[in-house]
Amino acid sequence: MATDTPIRIGVLGCADIARKVSRAINLAPNAVIAAVASRSLEKAKSFATANGYPQSTKIHGSYESILEDPELDALYIPLPSSLHVEWAIRAAEKGKHILLEKPVATNVTEFDKIVAACEANGVQIMDGTMWVHNPRTAKLKEFLSDPERFGQLKTVQSCFSLPADENFLKNNIRVKPDLDGLGALGDAGWYAIRATLLANNFELPKTAVAFPGAVLNDSGVILSCGAALSWEDGRTATIYCSFLAGLAMDLTAIGTKGTLRVHDFILPFKETEASFTTSTKAWFNDLVTAWVDPPSEHTVKTELPQEACMVREFARLVGEIKNKGAKPDVFWPSISRKTQLVVDAIKESVDKNCEQISLVGQ
Amino acid sequence: MATDTPIRIGVLGCADIARKVSRAINLAPNAVIAAVASRSLEKAKSFATANGYPQSTKIHGSYESILEDPELDALYIPLPSSLHVEWAIRAAEKGKHILLEKPVATNVTEFDKIVAACEANGVQIMDGTMWVHNPRTAKLKEFLSDPERFGQLKTVQSCFSLPADENFLKNNIRVKPDLDGLGALGDAGWYAIRATLLANNFELPKTAVAFPGAVLNDSGVILSCGAALSWEDGRTATIYCSFLAGLAMDLTAIGTKGTLRVHDFILPFKETEASFTTSTKAWFNDLVTAWVDPPSEHTVKTELPQEACMVREFARLVGEIKNKGAKPDVFWPSISRKTQLVVDAIKESVDKNCEQISLVGQ
Repeated sequence: MATDTPIRIGVLGCADIARKVSRAINLAPNAVIAAVASRSLEKAKSFATANGYPQSTKIHGSYESILEDPELDALYIPLPSSLHVEWAIRAAEKGKHILLEKPVATNVTEFDKIVAACEANGVQIMDGTMWVHNPRTAKLKEFLSDPERFGQLKTVQSCFSLPADENFLKNNIRVKPDLDGLGALGDAGWYAIRATLLANNFELPKTAVAFPGAVLNDSGVILSCGAALSWEDGRTATIYCSFLAGLAMDLTAIGTKGTLRVHDFILPFKETEASFTTSTKAWFNDLVTAWVDPPSEHTVKTELPQEACMVREFARLVGEIKNKGAKPDVFWPSISRKTQLVVDAIKESVDKNCEQISLVGQ
Repeated sequence: MATDTPIRIGVLGCADIARKVSRAINLAPNAVIAAVASRSLEKAKSFATANGYPQSTKIHGSYESILEDPELDALYIPLPSSLHVEWAIRAAEKGKHILLEKPVATNVTEFDKIVAACEANGVQIMDGTMWVHNPRTAKLKEFLSDPERFGQLKTVQSCFSLPADENFLKNNIRVKPDLDGLGALGDAGWYAIRATLLANNFELPKTAVAFPGAVLNDSGVILSCGAALSWEDGRTATIYCSFLAGLAMDLTAIGTKGTLRVHDFILPFKETEASFTTSTKAWFNDLVTAWVDPPSEHTVKTELPQEACMVREFARLVGEIKNKGAKPDVFWPSISRKTQLVVDAIKESVDKNCEQISLVGQ
């Protein structure tokens, strides 16, 4: 029996992030780049050249044109989030499976329309959150799920801050209300929220409340904010996201028996391996002058870069549908939706002067 | 010229923490244990024996008696916080300098009475927060104050959680409203708040607000809570403290240019050295697949355990007053007071269902 042919992916838009994902598509053993589109043929062509696309790549001078390309199984969509609802729905209607950059939409109502279109057309949708596909993440999850080493989760703290320069703060799409209007919350906060949900087995919190001190630009786009989440049984979490502070991406989870720490959870320091520290039943010596069982470090090798692992998983799911008649995997859109719900709730709390927002029944 | 004689310290109460501080007094080059008191002579005697006190140590069978001891320069007071206002004032009135366990009082009004008594009697007061005396802390401060390596502070996250067993949760003074009624907030939270203030150059926040999800026992004592603090210029902080989660004591500070992380800020993993990591102007490689300038670790040797550094500093100040006519150092009570103010504000926010509490004008 012949091996399944690689999934053919088109890149809809030449955003900066598409450079990295293009390389990832090339690296994934079960996917190939088959086309690229920009609003101008010139731009698409030079993007393809600059990123070492195969000669065979079809170059499209409009988004409409790539949607019609009959040779594509799937589209990677790195457009500004305000355009997702239009182009993801159109892609689904053309029967294209969708790898969609985050934030998946400007609010959950829009995302629900996208998911409905995907369901109606039997296509897979997955968002572009790369770190969850790093093999390290499975190890984190293993530790967090271990009643002996970690116990029951009590709190998670996660943050992603990165220092934007003046040009970014003036011109980047992530600070424009009509492009990526969720700003630092939709961009950096997305990862912190996803990490928090992952640690909580994707159970939605009961409430979200923004901290005082969110920073917004003149157009009302969030440049920096923090929030607390709380669950029915007393679990809590904090997230912090910012375009105005030094680079940090920390995840700390504290359980009844153990702790987990990651300092590069979104993008590991190195491409080929990723570390984390754990401690279990740590305590002090008799006089409380030093620790017994302090944290220890663990390192996980990564054969493929995490973004290529993401593409491999996406292409695997598409292959199951295409070649074996499987149904689209609902796990991925369900966690996109939950992440978006928490983004929306925190945004609402920021807008309402730190009011507590309920997520019950969402 | 003869060297000054060591400062003679009496230990008022045989709390568990007094074991460690007794050893620290013995280790400090400029202090000696000269007396110990308990409510029973027997208990004081067996405590002195168990902790290797010098033969010459005077044993007192009541708190009143040690106050009258004319040979003592100072008292270390590890009593439950509800007793501080009485015994610290009585000690001050007897002209004894005071090393006072934290939390310094059950609220700032009480602490102000203690400080007034110390001022009226010209005695030094310092609280028993040990970690700030670790030589590492000066190095942390150096980094946080460096405009090139750290830039301007944007946020601080600090936590101290420790898992209390059933016996603790039933019987320990830290869960009794009439003894250490501030519970985990006054005990564990104290350290997290102090760290936050230290990173903010001891500038009080504008507001404090508790997170939803505080856990209180049947008597209304806080077993676990979190809070956000915010400053006028947009700096923010979160603190988390708990008796119900695994051991963790993390401090993360993010500035415009750099980050600082400490995982054992209250009690270093080892007694003889303490580490922290910093990063400065960290960023990604061109394709954003790895970090350039990831965090690096720094280790600081400690000649003396941090609690002995604390006693040494306290004894030095007392020596300056006793031998050189210096005035008591107001820095230490001022930071105790600020820490207590933030404790009080968070407690008030917990009591008022997460209302924002203003600290302006305090």
